[in-house]
Amino acid sequence: MDDCPFCRIVKGTGAASAFYEDDLVLGILDISPVNPGHAMVIPRRHAASLAELDEDAGRRIWTVAQRAAAAVRQSGLRCEGVNLFLADGAAAYQDVFHVHLHVIPRYSGDGFHLRVDYDPRPSRVELDRVAARIRAACQRLWAFPTG
Amino acid sequence: MDDCPFCRIVKGTGAASAFYEDDLVLGILDISPVNPGHAMVIPRRHAASLAELDEDAGRRIWTVAQRAAAAVRQSGLRCEGVNLFLADGAAAYQDVFHVHLHVIPRYSGDGFHLRVDYDPRPSRVELDRVAARIRAACQRLWAFPTG
Repeated sequence: MDDCPFCRIVKGTGAASAFYEDDLVLGILDISPVNPGHAMVIPRRHAASLAELDEDAGRRIWTVAQRAAAAVRQSGLRCEGVNLFLADGAAAYQDVFHVHLHVIPRYSGDGFHLRVDYDPRPSRVELDRVAARIRAACQRLWAFPTG
Repeated sequence: MDDCPFCRIVKGTGAASAFYEDDLVLGILDISPVNPGHAMVIPRRHAASLAELDEDAGRRIWTVAQRAAAAVRQSGLRCEGVNLFLADGAAAYQDVFHVHLHVIPRYSGDGFHLRVDYDPRPSRVELDRVAARIRAACQRLWAFPTG
């Protein structure tokens, strides 16, 4: 994937400020940080989307993100909270099409603003109906036991 | 944790619309969804924060979220993209202090708005300095090999 900026970082032909690497993933800083210490965990192997991401690489991404969150809190950087954020698809704000999990140090009054225009709360009957659709899709895709 | 709403769901004394459960985690719907199909994956064992979360439970949370994202896309619900979002700490918008990873179906024009007021981009020298602090904290916490 010569045109993928994260693949270039993995190959070593693109610049990055890395804080972690192993056989499956890299931990690097976002060049356009929400706050200082804004990190990302990326898989070495190109995966444009969650659907393309190997589950073992996914689990490693999570573990490194969980540890990076603790490390940022211990680093001396300003950090009163942490958001983990992943965008899968352009409609979800994905910009670089190589999976990346953001680890964002947060503090009150920072420049990160999330606003949701909620619809009226659905009824329990409606929630159960939606859950049944997702449960059925889980079973079609993996036949894993569901509650 | 009798006063924790998610522990009550795990115990079966609180209502929830569940689409998945196993020995470590539950997949349930958010009662105040951003969009229909807005799901959450929670650990059975109470963990107020990422720091308290067992890493095995964390990896399971990730895997179930990755699968739930695919399931929501296959469910027939409107879903052009997916955000995974976790808030760790009040400053990061955490509301219920039992770890939960949101799986949010997204579509263009929906009511989810993220705005970041960015500072000027830091230099590579500054990014490298920040990365070194996080790397040092990782090494203090886990002595894991870092790049």
